[in-house]
Amino acid sequence: MIRVTVWGENVHERSEAPVRAIYPDGMHHTIAAAISALLSDKVTVRTATLDQPDHGLGDTALDDTDVLVWWGHIAHEAVDDALVHRIHQRILGGLGLVALHSAHYSKIFRRLMGTSCSLRWRNDGERETVWTVDPAHPIAAGIPQPIVIDAQEMYGEHFDIPAPDELVFVSSFAGGEVFRSGCCFRRGVGRIFYFSPGDQAFPVYHHPDVRRVVANAVEWAAPPSHQLGYRTDNPYTPAGWYE
Amino acid sequence: MIRVTVWGENVHERSEAPVRAIYPDGMHHTIAAAISALLSDKVTVRTATLDQPDHGLGDTALDDTDVLVWWGHIAHEAVDDALVHRIHQRILGGLGLVALHSAHYSKIFRRLMGTSCSLRWRNDGERETVWTVDPAHPIAAGIPQPIVIDAQEMYGEHFDIPAPDELVFVSSFAGGEVFRSGCCFRRGVGRIFYFSPGDQAFPVYHHPDVRRVVANAVEWAAPPSHQLGYRTDNPYTPAGWYE
Amino acid sequence: MIRVTVWGENVHERSEAPVRAIYPDGMHHTIAAAISALLSDKVTVRTATLDQPDHGLGDTALDDTDVLVWWGHIAHEAVDDALVHRIHQRILGGLGLVALHSAHYSKIFRRLMGTSCSLRWRNDGERETVWTVDPAHPIAAGIPQPIVIDAQEMYGEHFDIPAPDELVFVSSFAGGEVFRSGCCFRRGVGRIFYFSPGDQAFPVYHHPDVRRVVANAVEWAAPPSHQLGYRTDNPYTPAGWYE
Amino acid sequence: MIRVTVWGENVHERSEAPVRAIYPDGMHHTIAAAISALLSDKVTVRTATLDQPDHGLGDTALDDTDVLVWWGHIAHEAVDDALVHRIHQRILGGLGLVALHSAHYSKIFRRLMGTSCSLRWRNDGERETVWTVDPAHPIAAGIPQPIVIDAQEMYGEHFDIPAPDELVFVSSFAGGEVFRSGCCFRRGVGRIFYFSPGDQAFPVYHHPDVRRVVANAVEWAAPPSHQLGYRTDNPYTPAGWYE
Repeated sequence: MIRVTVWGENVHERSEAPVRAIYPDGMHHTIAAAISALLSDKVTVRTATLDQPDHGLGDTALDDTDVLVWWGHIAHEAVDDALVHRIHQRILGGLGLVALHSAHYSKIFRRLMGTSCSLRWRNDGERETVWTVDPAHPIAAGIPQPIVIDAQEMYGEHFDIPAPDELVFVSSFAGGEVFRSGCCFRRGVGRIFYFSPGDQAFPVYHHPDVRRVVANAVEWAAPPSHQLGYRTDNPYTPAGWYE
Repeated sequence: MIRVTVWGENVHERSEAPVRAIYPDGMHHTIAAAISALLSDKVTVRTATLDQPDHGLGDTALDDTDVLVWWGHIAHEAVDDALVHRIHQRILGGLGLVALHSAHYSKIFRRLMGTSCSLRWRNDGERETVWTVDPAHPIAAGIPQPIVIDAQEMYGEHFDIPAPDELVFVSSFAGGEVFRSGCCFRRGVGRIFYFSPGDQAFPVYHHPDVRRVVANAVEWAAPPSHQLGYRTDNPYTPAGWYE
Repeated sequence: MIRVTVWGENVHERSEAPVRAIYPDGMHHTIAAAISALLSDKVTVRTATLDQPDHGLGDTALDDTDVLVWWGHIAHEAVDDALVHRIHQRILGGLGLVALHSAHYSKIFRRLMGTSCSLRWRNDGERETVWTVDPAHPIAAGIPQPIVIDAQEMYGEHFDIPAPDELVFVSSFAGGEVFRSGCCFRRGVGRIFYFSPGDQAFPVYHHPDVRRVVANAVEWAAPPSHQLGYRTDNPYTPAGWYE
Repeated sequence: MIRVTVWGENVHERSEAPVRAIYPDGMHHTIAAAISALLSDKVTVRTATLDQPDHGLGDTALDDTDVLVWWGHIAHEAVDDALVHRIHQRILGGLGLVALHSAHYSKIFRRLMGTSCSLRWRNDGERETVWTVDPAHPIAAGIPQPIVIDAQEMYGEHFDIPAPDELVFVSSFAGGEVFRSGCCFRRGVGRIFYFSPGDQAFPVYHHPDVRRVVANAVEWAAPPSHQLGYRTDNPYTPAGWYE
């Protein structure tokens, strides 16, 4: 069983009625429900939010997590630096990370990338089409060519990230912009997937193809069983490699 | 001085009046003129065409070539296999290649890639926008974000190529498709750049930004002086490395 | 079940007594037995050799193959070009390939790479140590750091291949040379793994760690179930993507 | 002219007589002299050290720097965090970085990589051979195959870095270990080269081939002229791209 924790900032959903109308229990609940439904026999899913003690990600919670799904936007700066450090160490040690949409600017994603992670954006609710450029990639399994999302925030290039280790999806927008919208990175022994669809103003996480991508990403990012022996004090190092 | 040979199939231009109206001396002449004009003090440029003896690419011509620019479309199969073999060996030994538009299906490009090089296409003369995803790349120097080409053939993903060593441009089309339109590959000690704008039915090689990309690519693909000692009998091997 | 075919040239084993002493039934049998033993409940394994009709790789055999393991050395040129073409098309369509040792110079590997695949070599039976540089890679699962092979042929850089999509192992030799000995490539929707240990003069395929790498590579190279719908007439294209 | 600043920690050289005997004016002076000598008409070179105000890297000094060469070891933690932040921003904006030897653990390198940058090591003064795996790379120009360094500290895999954008050199050591010793990374619009030879206990920066690599790396890492318009307030963004 892959143990998944979906972390949601959960600010827009409480303060803005239009967002609450789309995600009455918070985006994290909708995302968690999608993963549970699509990977029912393979996962256990819990949620955590910014306002909980330790943002819901204390050591016990992280000990029970194989893949962390992250959605944040307006409150990146409110996330505790010491927690970001601990999550960073765990990702290098094998914890999977699925960073969604505006998580491009989260502390943990920027720490992992080492770049500004800046991009262009425009929020006019325009059509996004998501194209698979690596059809053999497991995250693209079962995904139509293309995914069509009727209304979305535009995220455009240049996206200031390291060249992805694997580029899976590229999007275009009604305005003509393009964006590397599905990117895999490997850091330490951990796997990171960034997927850009998902602004809070639109019901993107109710879209069946978007849900499938998120579920596929969870499976892809999960650490394989042979990594379970990695030492937590030196997380990039398999146990027994050094004396 | 970089010695450039622009190879043109030169079939459409002679058999189709609309193409001839755009390129009265052939596309190869227009492309060659662009390179000469933009890199005037750095290059010598000649042209070669399919109908010449040895397709204009006999050993003497190749001996005098540092970068080969290739445009072909309807007559790929008419290119002599033995010549393709010789060009392949030379590219592995350092000859630069700039493959334009429908050259994705040329024998030499497919030989170098090892894949089918297939793609989607639709020829409705629609708008293409070419976005830089690697703004530090020398081929992107001086290129606006984006290049807008009012009318072009659509080339779309999935484009069946190896993952590029460097991805410089990604295009979108009015129909919503995306395409990895500017791709760098390194094979042997040679450099290869594929650039997709350029259907014969549209005046794409008169577009100033497209011309700048082609000129930048020629500079990028030229073998550095330290490679001049590579042995022609074993072209990937620097002289003196093996006894 | 992953359907594996181990192809062996089977020339040295019949013509040279020292090789026959190491591999009395042929290297292909030893390699096939290793895969069967290590992946017993996950694979069916057959063998094929050069001297069989269609080299043992007729359409029926290939239809029943998910992963092809290839060992060849002295008789690369004897492999039929039309068969190489068919195998190439199938790899682009999802057939996995594990190319062993001197298969770097096989027709199929060179066709896929598009480069000369040349390397340095010296056959003095010296010690090779194989180091994991990507410890999270599934092909490195359960592999000690390093593998020590007491006697092997030296293969050294420069190895003229495209930059691997994933570099898993790097070897050193008693003479000081290094070699990118475990390299992953993705071409079309197929996966290719090259692994260099394995000269016929030494009992390398009896080495438990080498056997484990080969078995891991078979699992990694197997096409995922979501690719089974790829069209055989246009093998890089998922069914239903194009009209 | 490329404006180079060689930063040296300059601690070992003052506190340890054997190091002072090798580098009487500090390692930074030896490295700076090598760059000046080899690129005499192309560079201006200055030095900076930890004990200077602002570690010698105040805004004026950085404004006058195109490429920063960094050697640190025992005093990484003494480097001011705010300065590291400023250097990081400048690298994303185009400043080149050449990180030498134990700079793998410097704050700036780890910030850029996003990983632990850990490695194996053993300091027995053993032979290192440095092999070129990318002979067409400009940093390999004029470098023998291999470089032989008679006595060096061993740095071995696994080296916990992101997969390099370009892998240029791989080393082996008398003990059999291997190491990715010459690695290129692109972050923002900046270029970063890591080169591992260079422990303070051995006269490595007097070695002519090592000096040539460092000089080549300075040329490679220098920002091209077309990047000079990048905005310093948003350093990854070319001026005029956004309004």
